[in-house]
Formats: sequence, C-alpha cells, structure tokens
Amino acid sequence: MAKDVLIVGGGPAGLHAARNIADIGGNAILVEQRDVLGGTPDEARYAALTPHLESAQDALDEMRAAVIDRPEIDLRLGSTVLESSGKAGDFKVSVAKNGGEAEQLDVGSVILTTGFQHFDPGRETQMYGYYENPDVITLVDAEKMLSKHEFVRPSNGEKPERVAFIQCVGSRDRRLGNEYCSKVCCGIASKEAIEIRKLLPDTKVYIFYIDMRMYGYWENQLYWPAQEEHNVIYVRGIVTEILKRGDRLLMKGEDTTMGRPMEVEMDVIVLSVGMEPSAGTREMARVFDIEKNKYGFIHTPGEPMDPVSTSVPGVYVAGAAAGPKDIEDSIGMASAAAMKALAMVRSAG
Amino acid sequence: MAKDVLIVGGGPAGLHAARNIADIGGNAILVEQRDVLGGTPDEARYAALTPHLESAQDALDEMRAAVIDRPEIDLRLGSTVLESSGKAGDFKVSVAKNGGEAEQLDVGSVILTTGFQHFDPGRETQMYGYYENPDVITLVDAEKMLSKHEFVRPSNGEKPERVAFIQCVGSRDRRLGNEYCSKVCCGIASKEAIEIRKLLPDTKVYIFYIDMRMYGYWENQLYWPAQEEHNVIYVRGIVTEILKRGDRLLMKGEDTTMGRPMEVEMDVIVLSVGMEPSAGTREMARVFDIEKNKYGFIHTPGEPMDPVSTSVPGVYVAGAAAGPKDIEDSIGMASAAAMKALAMVRSAG
Repeated sequence: MAKDVLIVGGGPAGLHAARNIADIGGNAILVEQRDVLGGTPDEARYAALTPHLESAQDALDEMRAAVIDRPEIDLRLGSTVLESSGKAGDFKVSVAKNGGEAEQLDVGSVILTTGFQHFDPGRETQMYGYYENPDVITLVDAEKMLSKHEFVRPSNGEKPERVAFIQCVGSRDRRLGNEYCSKVCCGIASKEAIEIRKLLPDTKVYIFYIDMRMYGYWENQLYWPAQEEHNVIYVRGIVTEILKRGDRLLMKGEDTTMGRPMEVEMDVIVLSVGMEPSAGTREMARVFDIEKNKYGFIHTPGEPMDPVSTSVPGVYVAGAAAGPKDIEDSIGMASAAAMKALAMVRSAG
Repeated sequence: MAKDVLIVGGGPAGLHAARNIADIGGNAILVEQRDVLGGTPDEARYAALTPHLESAQDALDEMRAAVIDRPEIDLRLGSTVLESSGKAGDFKVSVAKNGGEAEQLDVGSVILTTGFQHFDPGRETQMYGYYENPDVITLVDAEKMLSKHEFVRPSNGEKPERVAFIQCVGSRDRRLGNEYCSKVCCGIASKEAIEIRKLLPDTKVYIFYIDMRMYGYWENQLYWPAQEEHNVIYVRGIVTEILKRGDRLLMKGEDTTMGRPMEVEMDVIVLSVGMEPSAGTREMARVFDIEKNKYGFIHTPGEPMDPVSTSVPGVYVAGAAAGPKDIEDSIGMASAAAMKALAMVRSAG
C-alpha cells in the first residue's frame, strides 16, 4: 500500500496540497506547529486579499473546511517535525506534539510549506525608527488595523491627514543581503492604500517607490484604480531618513522623477516590509538536509520547468518557503508538489 | 470507469498537465493543432529560458518525452476541437484531424492550455515603424537570431554598435485597450540583452523602460548581473518616435529620470512586445461557451485562491490562455488544473 505524504505547514500552500492529495485518492499527514490552521495570513490577521479585497478569513475558512474531518488527512496541530531519516519512498520522520513525546511516522514523500516571515524593520534599518516611533508601522500593522475597519495614528488614536508607504524595506537591498524583490509588496501597499482612502476620504495617501511592480493584471486591477478612482499618489523616490518634528514625522529623501530633494511631513508611515524565510523553513531545511539558496529560502534547482523539487529526492516545496510568492503562486506550486509527492508514493508503494 | 480528461494545446502548460494526469493514474487526450508539440516556445524558436539561460529546446524535449508513447495519453496532433456539448463529467467533444472528418469523444473534464500570441507591433503603433524598417525588430525576432548564436543588423547583416530595447510595446497601454502588464517582457529583454552583450562585447545595449518589473528572484538573477557583469544600460524613459537617419535609426523621446528630451541613434531597436490571447484561446472560449475577460483572455473568477476554474464547471484553464504568465506560473497552474480535472472525472466516473 502506498505510504502517506507528509505536509509540513498549515498555511495556504499546505492546505491546498492536502486537499489536492485527498481529492485524488491519496493520504496525507499535515503537521502544523500552531494550534490553528491558516498560516501567516491567519497569524498576521490579514484583512482582505490582493487584488480583489475579498475577506482573507472567508477564503481561509473555505480552505480549512476542505481539509478538516476528512479520513484521508491526518491533522497534527500544535506539532513539529524533529528529525528525519531514510530516503524517497521511505522516510522515517519523528513528529512531536509540542512539549510531548516524539512519534515515528513512515511517509513516502514530503512537501514543505513552511513559508516566510515578514522582514523585521528594526534590523539594520534604524533610519526608519520603527521601534522608536509608534507612528512608523509596517504593512502587517496596517493590515491589523484595516481588519477592524479603522486606520488611526497609533500614537494618539486620531485620524491621520497624511499617510506614506515606503516600498522595498528589506528588499532589493544589498547592504542587508536581501538583493531579491519580495514580489507582493507593491500590490499589497496599493491595496491597503485603496482601503485607507475608502475609510478616510480626506486623508492624503502617498506611495514612495523605486519601480512599481504591478505585474500582469495587478496593473489594471490595482495600480490604475488606485490612482484614478482613489487618488492614491505614487511618487518615484528614495526615502533616506525619518525624523520627528513636533508630533508629526518628517520624511526626508529625493523625488527621483523630479530630480530634487524632498522633505514632507507625515502622520503615519507604513514600511512595506518584504519576505524572509521563516524559522520553520530554516529548521526544515536542516531536518531534511536540503540545500538553501543564499537567502536561506529552499533551493529549487529545476526552476523554471520544475519549481517544486528540492535538492533531496522525494522532498518538495511549495509557497514562500522557496522565496517570495503571491497566493496564486502558492496554490499552483502546492498542486505541482502534490502531484509529484503522490506519484512518488505510488511508484514506491 | 472514469472518463478521460481533454487537454487542448500542446505547449508547456498542456504538456505538464498531461504528464501529471498520467503520472497519477488518469487518462488524457491531448489535442494540438500543430503537427508538433511544444507550443509557442517551439513555434517561435525560443533560444534560452529566463532566467537561467538553459536551452529552451532541451527543456521542451524533456517535456515532450514525458508524454510521448504513454498508454495513458492519447496524442492528437494536427487536430482541432470543433464543438462541445454536455456538462461537467460528461462532455461530448468533436475533434477533427485538420481537413479530416470529425470524431466525437466522451470526456469528463477539459483543460484549456491554448496560450497567447505576441502583440503585433504593426497594429496601431505605427510610430515604431516595425513593418517599414528591417532594423526595428521584436523580442521574438531577436530570440530567433540568438538561437543561431548571432545578432546582426537585419538590413545589412553587419554587427550593430548600439542596440535598444523598448519595453511595454502593446502593454500598459490604454489606447490599445491593453491596460495590463505582460509580466515577462522585462525579464526576457534583460535576458536577451545579456546574451547580446556576451556575443558582441563592443556593442552598447540599452533598455528603455517605465518600471523594471523584475519580481522575486529575477531581480538578483537578471537585473543586477545585467548591469554589473554585462554593462547593460537601463534608462527610465519614454520613446515617442523612431525615424530613419542615414542608415541608422533615430530614437526620440524623454529620459524621465533626468527629466530631459532624448535623441539617440541606434542600429537595432527591439520592441518588447507583450501578450495577447491566441486565436486558439479565443476560439476555445467560443466552443466551450466560457467567459472571457475584457482583454479576451479566459476569465478565472476564483482567483487568487482558485486560479484555474473557468465560468463553466468542469472546464479549467492553465498558462497564458488566462492572461500574462511566466513558465513557472504555467507549470503550477497546469498541476492545479490537472488535479481539479482528474478529481472531476473520478467523482463523476
């Protein structure tokens, strides 16, 4: 009999992979370290999805419902994978309920969906004063406010008159070692800017960027409506420093389209933080002894034709554990990995 | 017994979907209108894949080998789908060998992988003089030269001293109705620019752009190496007109970073043409009576969580038939569609 597929991580990619395997007649064990399913979109309380602004929780509820109470899926919440041995078709994996005793599982193949973490803007970017000034926040902090249908100055709870997003915080930055682009921040900032303009029609909202990477339909779904329907103001510019001036923030830098220095007062500044590999992704790379790329994400040597195989046969990756991905990428990769993982257990079974 | 899955289109997405279905124990019928498999990358003779520059033909050969001579896959080359009736789980589809009599097939579900066509730069963009001047070419024309390991001025066969790429030809253009971004042209132009610089180290190569959309790893895989290792020159600017001056081309426009008008002589100008729905995509939308979006691509109402379901149950889409996609997108979508199509025939079987 064919063995189970082990899926590590219960975010969108892991949920979609598990559902796919069950739908096609396979069996999966899904291990998630938190006590709830949903991954980063749940943990960070994402409000609305990019680009159509439907409820993130509704979308996650639908994905969770598709894996709960199914005989083909063995859910292990509050659990972690400690060690692994063996090889493709025959892995022995030890899994423990957090704080409990380890249990050994026999699985035929593995899909890692352990995702990313948001860049910590306190690390090496002191110029933005994230930990010093409550009115300097991140995309994630903004999302939490928006999920409660509000957007205020955290320092005093008042309505901001001027809000600025700063793009590429922790991305496209050689000094930090993160040369890559985090892919989704342009779209997410634009989505949040639209939501703020809808909530607060008198508030001016600016987005300061290097390149607006609104690839594919995000161009017409987000970038044009943001400007034409919601009056979001996009400025190609570099922000070099944020200072306090009275009870507001003074943002200094250069407007690179106009070619002149820029000093603007803002009430709230949102740092568009990028993606870094999560602790779980780094740990699973160690447990399964797979190659990481120079950024610590899981290496996929077969890309672009095979974006899910890792350096170890029988171990696959899907979603942002392999680098910056949007939700559509994660869903597609989850299916591609599920196909390979299931074919592997069947050929070995 | 579960019915077959019909796949329409033998490009990367169709090949990957067929292989996936066979690998997992299903049966597929793959209909391709040309007499060979490989789709647009084959027809347009792509030389090297973005971003790693491996041979496109080698990659296609591997994909073709995975579907040829497999009992689970019924290949119908030189064939087209004429009509369809029925519903999810029970479609009657008439398929004809080109010029031959139609045969009726019973299939349970359908995956459309009929792809895109390159924007025709003669249409409504006369200012670039594509059909008037042999030294104005497209990304596709450049790729054909590069596949023969050469890059010359088409008008005289000589080595060009200066080459310019113009981005967003047929994309991000409301006048044409193509407001969307074609997603891959920034990466492909950068890849070709690197290849030209390798072939012709004395040739200056420029890329004129609005935003460089090197999302994710393309930033570090292509954009930085293009500039630092290969001295490709990126200029943020708008090109408004191309004129003949002697035996060279005079490119007029504005350098938007420097904020000044620009007049530069070039020997070859490469138009970075975007994606439009292929004739096959438009035709299959008619045959299966599925909704298109305003650009004529196949509408996917469930995105981002479900990027492959169409408006008709049992009919799925993968790859650039649904809009601008890169190869990784196409592979992921092909697996996602294969999963859904196979689950559909099994639940109905």
